[in-house]
Amino acid sequence: MPTQVIVVNGGSSSGKSGIVRCLQAVLPEPWLAAAVDALVDALPAAMRTSDGGIEFAADGAVHVGAEFRRLEAAWMAGVAAMARAGARVVVDDVFLSGSASQERWRTALDGLDVLWVGVRCDGAVAEGRGIARGDRPRGMAAAQAESVHEGVTYDVEVDTTHTESLGCARAIAARVT
Amino acid sequence: MPTQVIVVNGGSSSGKSGIVRCLQAVLPEPWLAAAVDALVDALPAAMRTSDGGIEFAADGAVHVGAEFRRLEAAWMAGVAAMARAGARVVVDDVFLSGSASQERWRTALDGLDVLWVGVRCDGAVAEGRGIARGDRPRGMAAAQAESVHEGVTYDVEVDTTHTESLGCARAIAARVT
Amino acid sequence: MPTQVIVVNGGSSSGKSGIVRCLQAVLPEPWLAAAVDALVDALPAAMRTSDGGIEFAADGAVHVGAEFRRLEAAWMAGVAAMARAGARVVVDDVFLSGSASQERWRTALDGLDVLWVGVRCDGAVAEGRGIARGDRPRGMAAAQAESVHEGVTYDVEVDTTHTESLGCARAIAARVT
Amino acid sequence: MPTQVIVVNGGSSSGKSGIVRCLQAVLPEPWLAAAVDALVDALPAAMRTSDGGIEFAADGAVHVGAEFRRLEAAWMAGVAAMARAGARVVVDDVFLSGSASQERWRTALDGLDVLWVGVRCDGAVAEGRGIARGDRPRGMAAAQAESVHEGVTYDVEVDTTHTESLGCARAIAARVT
Repeated sequence: MPTQVIVVNGGSSSGKSGIVRCLQAVLPEPWLAAAVDALVDALPAAMRTSDGGIEFAADGAVHVGAEFRRLEAAWMAGVAAMARAGARVVVDDVFLSGSASQERWRTALDGLDVLWVGVRCDGAVAEGRGIARGDRPRGMAAAQAESVHEGVTYDVEVDTTHTESLGCARAIAARVT
Repeated sequence: MPTQVIVVNGGSSSGKSGIVRCLQAVLPEPWLAAAVDALVDALPAAMRTSDGGIEFAADGAVHVGAEFRRLEAAWMAGVAAMARAGARVVVDDVFLSGSASQERWRTALDGLDVLWVGVRCDGAVAEGRGIARGDRPRGMAAAQAESVHEGVTYDVEVDTTHTESLGCARAIAARVT
Repeated sequence: MPTQVIVVNGGSSSGKSGIVRCLQAVLPEPWLAAAVDALVDALPAAMRTSDGGIEFAADGAVHVGAEFRRLEAAWMAGVAAMARAGARVVVDDVFLSGSASQERWRTALDGLDVLWVGVRCDGAVAEGRGIARGDRPRGMAAAQAESVHEGVTYDVEVDTTHTESLGCARAIAARVT
Repeated sequence: MPTQVIVVNGGSSSGKSGIVRCLQAVLPEPWLAAAVDALVDALPAAMRTSDGGIEFAADGAVHVGAEFRRLEAAWMAGVAAMARAGARVVVDDVFLSGSASQERWRTALDGLDVLWVGVRCDGAVAEGRGIARGDRPRGMAAAQAESVHEGVTYDVEVDTTHTESLGCARAIAARVT
């Protein structure tokens, strides 16, 4: 069965979004990107700073509330429906809850052919890349570098510490059927 | 039955996105925004300049290909699934095909309680606002001002020519059940 | 003597930037934009959240420190030099100190032919436009609507409450020599 | 004499902007960024697509007209004035004319203490990074990788092919006096 969904998981500044854009460039068929960052942008502004929504603390921690989880679950159902309707979708997410995050996606994507991709990056390197981007709280990349992978299983893992986005994308694309 | 989806249709620079953000601010429950602009951003870069994708011509015309239509249909199915999963969704779209665009949404949103909203704006005024934004091709706002409403039926219509986004949002919110 | 610098002053969400882009579109000669927002973007990230730099408080207040003032003075000298070197420059600023801000510009632009422009907007309307933009702290537009004009004298004043950016720009352009 | 201006030159997607942000983070004093990209954004929209202005061709070539050169010269004079007024400035430029570009800066910055920095990146690697960014024309990074350095002399050169932005910034910072 051809791959219907690629789920890319990695910490802040690990290089996920660049890999997703390269995947869209190298894969022969068009793939839609579905990024958790776009979900956050789609929330009411008030939810980006509130208890029930999602908060980005000054120390790089991310706090997620019940209302965010509820909308996130609906978003996952929406992504699954896009794939069932025939769009190939590449998801760009940060598994803040590690294996529990993967379980939520597994439930939502039930019956679909999914390629699970882990994007690793040395914490200090990712932290430096966050400084180079200039718009990320200090500490976020380092805090997420290991934790987002805890208990998660992958079909393919790439490491951007020493490999370019395009090279990582090609390694992933080779596993897309 | 409570409103599950608000579909906001209007031409370029008519003020849809500002109304959507105001709606998210004034409605008591959280609403997710689903904008066709975000769909375009989610496409492979190559599809934003190709025959099969979506092209923004220098004269303000927008050309849409078969592959874009296919992915757009999947996106509509995804938006419907988000609403069925319990998220309230406010759609921000430009009905390039007028009543045929509405028909596509009607099919996708079958069984959901939808509020149809038309955002009108005098073509010359919208064109001037496009100049003030600075990133829109000349002619796009004027070209779309009337055509996107052809044959479309609404539950509520607002006109941003003389009414602020927040006032329009309040008029729409009064119709949300 | 032909106008060399246009200084546009107004509160947050009063519509300055849109007027500047329209001015660039309607004036027959090319004008460079010099916006205080671009100065803030040019600062080290750490200065956008620190005592000595510039802080945007959650209540919409803006706090400016000594180091920001020092770099702002250098920026004003740079803008003046661009104009003396033959570029027409349109400045987009928020006179947080009212007449004292104007005095700083007057000193920097000494000897140049300057057109002083005030952009007014009803506080409640500007606040609503801030909500429509979605990325401004609540209260900022209302707080600045009157205060930025205190003690400031203008060659021309426009009011965006009921006039479009393009119309305001045309009224200003008529005063450019 | 303490360094007053750092001029960073490199091709598209060579990593200049990330290095500049890292420099701003690691240098003990505040440095203002002055990027040619910000100059382009400050132009009238019409000049970004016209003969006399600056055009970004679909093949990655950049065409610069007489009016752009005139405004660029005024911008250089402005940057020099900012430095003379006491701001430390780090310039982020693409020497499209190689040594002639450097000569223009040398003239503008006469009398100031300047650190000249070359940012190199393997053309194929930069091209791949351009794909990962998604908003650059194909071919631009490869076309500029060598040409922007032709005949240019530097105080320090860094290569982002195998070194992170933060590491490059530290190497440059070690040369700032």
